[in-house]
This record gives sequence, structure tokens and C-alpha cells, in this order.
Amino acid sequence: MIATLKDLLGEKVSFDPSVLEAHGKDTSYPEIHPPAAVVFAVSVEDVLKVLSWCQKHHTPVIPFGAGSSLEGHIIPQSPAISLDFSLMNNILEVYPQDFLVAVEPGVRREELNQALRDTGLFFPVDPGANATLGGMAATNASGTTTVRYGGMHQNVVELEVVLANGDILHLGRSVRKTSSGYNLKDLFIGSGGTLGIITRLVLRLYPIPAFVHTMRVFFPGLTEAAEAAYRIMASALPVARLELLDELSIKVINRDLKRTYLEKPALFLEFHSSTGTAIEEESAIANKLVRVAGALDINVAKHEQERADQWEARHHFYWAFVHSNPGCLYYTTDTAVPISRVTELVTYAQQLLTEMRLEGSIVGHVGDGNFHTLIATLPEEYSLAEIFSELLVNRSLELGGTATGEHGIGLVKRKFMEAEHGAALDWMRQIKALFDPEGLLNPGKIV
Amino acid sequence: MIATLKDLLGEKVSFDPSVLEAHGKDTSYPEIHPPAAVVFAVSVEDVLKVLSWCQKHHTPVIPFGAGSSLEGHIIPQSPAISLDFSLMNNILEVYPQDFLVAVEPGVRREELNQALRDTGLFFPVDPGANATLGGMAATNASGTTTVRYGGMHQNVVELEVVLANGDILHLGRSVRKTSSGYNLKDLFIGSGGTLGIITRLVLRLYPIPAFVHTMRVFFPGLTEAAEAAYRIMASALPVARLELLDELSIKVINRDLKRTYLEKPALFLEFHSSTGTAIEEESAIANKLVRVAGALDINVAKHEQERADQWEARHHFYWAFVHSNPGCLYYTTDTAVPISRVTELVTYAQQLLTEMRLEGSIVGHVGDGNFHTLIATLPEEYSLAEIFSELLVNRSLELGGTATGEHGIGLVKRKFMEAEHGAALDWMRQIKALFDPEGLLNPGKIV
Repeated sequence: MIATLKDLLGEKVSFDPSVLEAHGKDTSYPEIHPPAAVVFAVSVEDVLKVLSWCQKHHTPVIPFGAGSSLEGHIIPQSPAISLDFSLMNNILEVYPQDFLVAVEPGVRREELNQALRDTGLFFPVDPGANATLGGMAATNASGTTTVRYGGMHQNVVELEVVLANGDILHLGRSVRKTSSGYNLKDLFIGSGGTLGIITRLVLRLYPIPAFVHTMRVFFPGLTEAAEAAYRIMASALPVARLELLDELSIKVINRDLKRTYLEKPALFLEFHSSTGTAIEEESAIANKLVRVAGALDINVAKHEQERADQWEARHHFYWAFVHSNPGCLYYTTDTAVPISRVTELVTYAQQLLTEMRLEGSIVGHVGDGNFHTLIATLPEEYSLAEIFSELLVNRSLELGGTATGEHGIGLVKRKFMEAEHGAALDWMRQIKALFDPEGLLNPGKIV
Repeated sequence: MIATLKDLLGEKVSFDPSVLEAHGKDTSYPEIHPPAAVVFAVSVEDVLKVLSWCQKHHTPVIPFGAGSSLEGHIIPQSPAISLDFSLMNNILEVYPQDFLVAVEPGVRREELNQALRDTGLFFPVDPGANATLGGMAATNASGTTTVRYGGMHQNVVELEVVLANGDILHLGRSVRKTSSGYNLKDLFIGSGGTLGIITRLVLRLYPIPAFVHTMRVFFPGLTEAAEAAYRIMASALPVARLELLDELSIKVINRDLKRTYLEKPALFLEFHSSTGTAIEEESAIANKLVRVAGALDINVAKHEQERADQWEARHHFYWAFVHSNPGCLYYTTDTAVPISRVTELVTYAQQLLTEMRLEGSIVGHVGDGNFHTLIATLPEEYSLAEIFSELLVNRSLELGGTATGEHGIGLVKRKFMEAEHGAALDWMRQIKALFDPEGLLNPGKIV
């Protein structure tokens, strides 16, 4: 039966076991479930063909970007077609005068910014991984720069989506604001391929800041670091990145990247400004604020290379941690809480790691109240990491927070949906049933 | 039959003809249709009582804030209950350390900012009118500061809504970001009371900027003004307001407010910064940019009073225009286009005003590509203004723009929904039918 897919899509279909396996795993979910076939789409027409085949054969379809998600979003739960967008990766048009760009869903964010370089503009959303823009919209990605530029909701102005029934919808407009009709664009952003399949995006761009100032500040403890973060947020300084790293994270980075950072809880900061004098003065204020909060040591990156090194360290942290804990499975938590509760939740996470004798590091987008605990366990002890996450999410929800700040619900976090959303969960399920009555689109995820 | 409402809600119900009339009109829609009764809710319980009564008696209910909307959002289309929130106006809790505030829907934005004054924080969304926060969320309001701080989508983190069936949903969380579940919060923002009734909001707050710099710049023509606006946007300067006013707007302001502004197309600008030196330097750059674009005259407001005067002029413009054209009806267009198309659409609007011999002024949030044409006509010629708006919206849509940047669809713009949304309109209608199968919630609006 699956062979008939070839009749429809020819060489775009792959049954190669290594290809299937690569589409049956993400960056963190521990189990591999290869799909029945992978289709490499190059056009909306291909997407429509796959959907009509899937409908006819009652087979689910799972959109696939870079496979860099972490919550099992793209793992089949039954025999399914993985619809890979890596070949549908054209930058369709740059509109520099509108600060917009139209892309196919398979374009990756680093390639996009590379292509934009000559325009003086950039796309700011930076989840660390070199994800596809389609995948980033599907999971509502954000990251280190969200404190200043927002995440995908704020930075996607237009989406083309194909529904289960083959309807092609154009959601949103290429404008900076609209109040026209129901906001379906933001309903589809973050819906993880469960309501429709994204086939085109228009994204917002920003002028590359003329002056960038990068700092690393080290503190005696996490409380002081969190206090400094709050002061920075309250100052209205043009902070573009505000990242917390705990002692163990710094140790792991020092070891893996041969750095000599002070092994203490740290804030990595970046300010974006439009004038040289402004940034000098802003950095003097930041300096004073972090000192008042108890900073032990302040390092200012003077050159672009030094800046690049600092953010490489932050972005490489996941892999540094993996290299430091070979032969393990890795689990990443993703809670976000009201800003004033960050210290409380971070402290709780650290105590829990100690109590449970788990090897874990805390890093996070502390300006947004969002942090990750990265845990390494032996495969046979993986359930301990799951228990840790469950306890942390429950505490986050008690503090008014969320189960997931930026990774999405996927498969792993479904069990928290009822606690977080209450009566709204049933309405989410009704929306799923409305758009996908036969359950063809990435079933078993989110709702 | 309507009298039984009193049994349920007592003194909260009004049949006073002047009260009914005040709830049967908005700021701009020309017809008055009084509701059958007005209920002044003070609690969620009251809302539930009204809904159950409406369900039993098959009578629509229309949430009412300040009546400052412009597109007929709150005008009954058949005998209906107007559910007034002006008494449900408590600021429930300020969370300064989280940059959040919880409010009831009847709180007005000026009162909110007054109450916040001692915290050093403010709520930025500023549509001009002193609207209620519930109404602003329902219509997805934005305004002069949206270019920097975003509109209601970005600044409401949590909504409590009551559905037609009495379900009470809590949408979103009190965090700066979440990727948990489908984004129903943003589906309800801008849904104009057609999907549910907002009974509580949590809003984002920002530190009051330490340094504010306000400029008025006059240009020989609109093209130069639009060019200057583009250069400002491309500069990455911390622009917080970027307003365009045409020659006639300035004349009207001079006449009504006894100002002596140069009667030429102008940009009114504001920059928010965190240091004194920064703002001096930023303003020097802005000065240079507008000169290169052809500025005739640049005025910098040095004192707070001068700043207040400038923005009073901008906000008072609607009433200045009304006073200058007594005995007329007034129509406000609300198109938004990609930034590069603003000059083209403004020029088209001006030519059309001349061709159609209409008295009209253009003002707008040009940094967001959104502008308004305010038209005064004799009552018997009102249809000319409607034709003007239709032609302007059609051109806006051709240019990739939207029928409404910030006022919403309401009643007036429904005819453009199909042209703007295509196949998505039918899905919006299905969502309406899902949440409100009996059509009790503000029927005849948006979809």
C-alpha cells in the first residue's frame, strides 16, 4: 500500500532505512519511531498530493523541518508519512523597504541571516539550533533575543497553510498591524503541525544594530544573579539578550570549549543601541546595576570576535553538556514563570537536583522568566529526569507559570495540558476536531 | 418578557431611554439602535446571569466598554442586551516586580496609568480615546506607541473569558512567553465580543522611560515626510511614536487649539531612551535623517509641557476636525499597508478626496504603515464617504494591505472580509459557530 506513494511522488519518496530513522527522532526525545516513508516536498502541490494520499489511506502526516525540536513533536505514534521540507528552502523575496522577507518553510534561520547580510537587516528569533523557519513557527520558537524582539508570534506576519481537507489558507497580511477578522495566524503558530501544514511565511526583519555591547557578569550565587537581572529589566536599558548560566554550566563550557570563565553563576548580556555614546553610557549604567546586585566580576567584550566567542559558549552549551556526559540520555526542562518567581524556581530546581542525585545544569532566558534544566542520566535512570521535570512543571504552574516557555507541548508535555489550561483544553480539542476531523495531522501531539 | 431581567439582576438593569440611547451608538457609526436593556455588571456572576437569560430568551448580548469604538462594534442589529462593564472597573492587583497588572475589563487606560504612576511603570497601548481595557482587547486596539511597544496582542498576557454556554476560560499565563497549547488568547483578542465575553485581563507594563525626546518636523510634501519616516525606521533609533499629519490636519489643529504650527505635512516623533547623553545623540541623528529627507522646519520639545501640548494636538485632532466641520457626519478610514506603500496610498487618498470633492484629513501611525482619513460630510452625502472608504480599502488590499489596521471589522468593514481573507473567512465562521452555535454573542459583527 505504501508503495503507491511512489506512483504519486516518484523520487521524492524515500524508504531508505537511514532516512527513515533520521525522521523518527528529534534532538532530545529518547525513543526512535521511524515513519513509514519520507516525502521530500518541493512545492505546495506535493503537500496536496501527500495529503490526498494520506486521506485515502487513513495515514497520518507529520511535517518535518530540521528535527531540532525537543519534545517529540515529530515522532510518529503510528505508521505515518514524514513530510520533509528541507528541499523547499527558497528565500522567495526580500522586501528591504518593508522590513519583510517571504520564505519557504524549509529555509533555516542561519542561512536566512546569511542571505540578508547585504541588506543591513536581520531576522532576530534565535532558538540556538539552526532550525527551519517553518518548524520555528510550528513550535512557536523564541530564544536568547526574545526579551527584545519577541518570538515567532511577533515576527511572522503572514502564513500560508494547507489544511487536512486541502484548503489553502492565507493568514495575516504583510503589514505591521491588522485588526481584521479572527487571528488565525497566531492560532496556527505553535500548533505543531496538528491543525495545518505551513507552506510559506512572511517574516519581520530589523535593522542590524549599529552598536552592540556584550557583557559577562559573575555572581556569588544565583539569587544575586537573578536580582541583577531584575534590575536590568526595570532600568529600561535596551537589553537584547539576558541569559543566566549556573556554576555547572560555566564549568561544562570551560571544559569543553577551553574557556577560563570564573566558575560562578553568571549573566551573559547584550545591549543593542543606535549610537556609540549611548552604548557607552548604557553599559556604564548596566555595570553599576550589576555591582549593586553583588557582581563579583564583570567582563566586557570589546571586539566582535569576543562577542561571537561569548554567544558561541552559550549556544554550544547543550553540546558541551552532552560531551561532558557521554553515554547518557539528556532531558531539557522548559518552564517559564513570572519574573519575580525565577529565583524561587531556580532554587527549587537546584535543591531537587541535589535531592534526586541528578547531574543537571541550569541556563535560561531569565529576562523572560524562562529557564532550562539540562539533565544527563544513564539510560536506565531516564525516568528520574522525567520525574524531575514533572515536579518542576507542577511547581511552575503553582507559581503562575507555564509548562513550556518555548519548546512546545509536543508529546512529552501533554500530561500537563489539563493542569495548565483547565476548561480551555476541551475547546482546544474541539478546534483540532474542526480543522482535522479525521486526525491526519500529526496526531497524538499537543491536545 | 424583557422585564424578567430585573428579577434576575435588579437595579443593575436599566431601561432609561437616555441610557439605552447612549448604548446604541459609538463614536463614528452614523445610526443609533438602542438595545432593549442595559445591564451594568459588577461581577462574573452577573455576566453568567445575563448569558443564561439571553440563552433562555434567544436574545443577543453585546459587551460594552466606553463606546469609543468606530466601526459599529456595539450597535445592536436586533433587540439585544447591552452588557456594560463601566462599573466592573477595579484594578485587581499590580505586580511591579513582574511588570504585570490584573484588571477588570471596565478599567480605562488613563485611570490605569494614573494608578500606576508611583510604580515607575506604565501601560503603553494608546489608541487616543480613553477606552476600557476590555474593549481595547476585544477590538485589538493599538495606536501611537505601537511602533515601539506593540498593540493588545503583545501586551495582554492573560484573559478570562466567559463563553456563550457559561464556560469560564483562562487563556494565557502571567508570563512573558509560553508555547503551551493552542493560542486561544490571541484568537479572542480582536474577536469583538463575538466569541466570548472578557471578564479579566492581565497586562504587561514597562518602565517609564527616563528620557523622552519629542520632535515636530515639517516637510514641503507628503512624499518627503514619508521618506523621512522610512529613514527613521531603518535607523534602529528607539522611536516610540512616529505620526504623520497632513497639511489640513495641521490647519485644523491650529484653528481649534490656537496653535501656530507651520501648515505643512508633518511628522510628530517621540524617542524613549534610558540615558541623557543617548537621547541627545539619538535626536541629533534623527535631526540629520529628516533634513536629508527634505525637512523644512524642526521643532524640539524641550519641556514636559511642550511634549504634552504636542501629543494633545495629535490626540485632539479628531475633535478639532469635528469642531471645524459642525453639523456633519464623520467617517474615519483605517487602512494599513506595507511601509513602502504608504506614500502611494496616501497620495491616492489625497487625489481621491479632491476628485470626490470631499473634506478630509490624513493622520496616521506611519511607522506602522497605518493611516486614517477623517472625512466630514453633510448627512445626505454620507454615502460618498462610504464609497471613498471602499475605494481606499480596495487599493490597500491590492497593495498587500489590510482593511483595518486597528479599529477592527465591526459592522462597517464586514464587506471586505472575503476579499481580504479568501478561504479563511469560512473557517472564521466555523470557529464562530463552534463557540457560539446559537449566535447570541454580538451577532452580525466581523464574520
